[in-house]
Amino acid sequence: MGTGTEARLLELGIQLPVLPAAGGNFIPAKTVGHIVYLSGVISMDNGKIITGTVGADRTVQDGYAAARACALMQLAVLKKYLGSLDAVRSVIGVNGYVNAVAGFQDSPKVINGASDLLVEVLGDAGRHVRAAIGVSALPLNALVEVQMTVEA
Amino acid sequence: MGTGTEARLLELGIQLPVLPAAGGNFIPAKTVGHIVYLSGVISMDNGKIITGTVGADRTVQDGYAAARACALMQLAVLKKYLGSLDAVRSVIGVNGYVNAVAGFQDSPKVINGASDLLVEVLGDAGRHVRAAIGVSALPLNALVEVQMTVEA
Amino acid sequence: MGTGTEARLLELGIQLPVLPAAGGNFIPAKTVGHIVYLSGVISMDNGKIITGTVGADRTVQDGYAAARACALMQLAVLKKYLGSLDAVRSVIGVNGYVNAVAGFQDSPKVINGASDLLVEVLGDAGRHVRAAIGVSALPLNALVEVQMTVEA
Repeated sequence: MGTGTEARLLELGIQLPVLPAAGGNFIPAKTVGHIVYLSGVISMDNGKIITGTVGADRTVQDGYAAARACALMQLAVLKKYLGSLDAVRSVIGVNGYVNAVAGFQDSPKVINGASDLLVEVLGDAGRHVRAAIGVSALPLNALVEVQMTVEA
Repeated sequence: MGTGTEARLLELGIQLPVLPAAGGNFIPAKTVGHIVYLSGVISMDNGKIITGTVGADRTVQDGYAAARACALMQLAVLKKYLGSLDAVRSVIGVNGYVNAVAGFQDSPKVINGASDLLVEVLGDAGRHVRAAIGVSALPLNALVEVQMTVEA
Repeated sequence: MGTGTEARLLELGIQLPVLPAAGGNFIPAKTVGHIVYLSGVISMDNGKIITGTVGADRTVQDGYAAARACALMQLAVLKKYLGSLDAVRSVIGVNGYVNAVAGFQDSPKVINGASDLLVEVLGDAGRHVRAAIGVSALPLNALVEVQMTVEA
């Protein structure tokens, strides 16, 4: 359970990012039963998109940081949507898309940035199923996009 | 709720497309609990596949029209599967894949074609979570593929 | 229902693969309600990754075999996780990612390798919704990745 998640964030000294302005006819989160479905979020740092392509102008380490930033953004989305991260019972799934050169082999090492953050903050409740994929094009040239589902 | 969806389609003068012949060992829709999971559909117009690659031989506007066509096809699938679109309570999620050149930045503008149609037809019940991804290859060289889940 | 699935596997003479060592802060399977969510698995044969790119160094037939291998791996994951495949009521969805050259048109023919296997083993309960996508990069240069959800 994520009961102590807000306290844990404080303890870790982690500040959640500011949410970008909404755009388009879609919503950041939607609940059906006990499951909260989240829109994909792209990698941002301090309001600026983390752009680029792993294997070209970006390294796996850059990708890892970008994936971590995506997970933090999803936590910020959840906090706004649910009122408190303590309402998150567990993370169900993470789909991670990496903007990468053709043949890039290390998408899992990149998406670990999201997985590690979720487990760091939520403990065992943060452990999730996952798929990591390398793609040729992400919105606004973002380096990473992460879509998530959680149990609340 | 989508109670008046069939009436709304008539009001908008929107005709649903004819479903293509099924192929392969998979099914267009499956319900578990209150959720209807749909197979991905590719962009078609009047029985002909809308093909191409955004950023090469196709524009963002072409992609938008193709994404709208995918959403119409999913509504046609749902009408056949559920008997009436009035049985659709809400759209949960849309995953949109755009056949695009490497580095294409505007997948969201393309997938808006699906999102806008769903909200036009279903109103607030049509608002959904979403991920938009650019990929290097879609079935039969389709321009767009859209996968959806709805609440029924 | 998958009640006789273990018997059916024996009858077909199908042996499930050995699971690879786990890696990373994620889990192979997670249940919420009646749904088991599975992590993506990559194509492996006898502990060795089936690598390559369809349309370059691999054919559609190679891809079909790789997709079948992914589905077998998911059954092996489910058997370990649930204790017996007889606990699988049905397959809900399959998302298949094919490592392919840009413009590759036959991802469905590749992912049929997974769909056909699931229906061969589970019968009607194996029929699922599906999306097949061609991507430019899969983990460890795998030829195919398959993510699944099942009802249990």
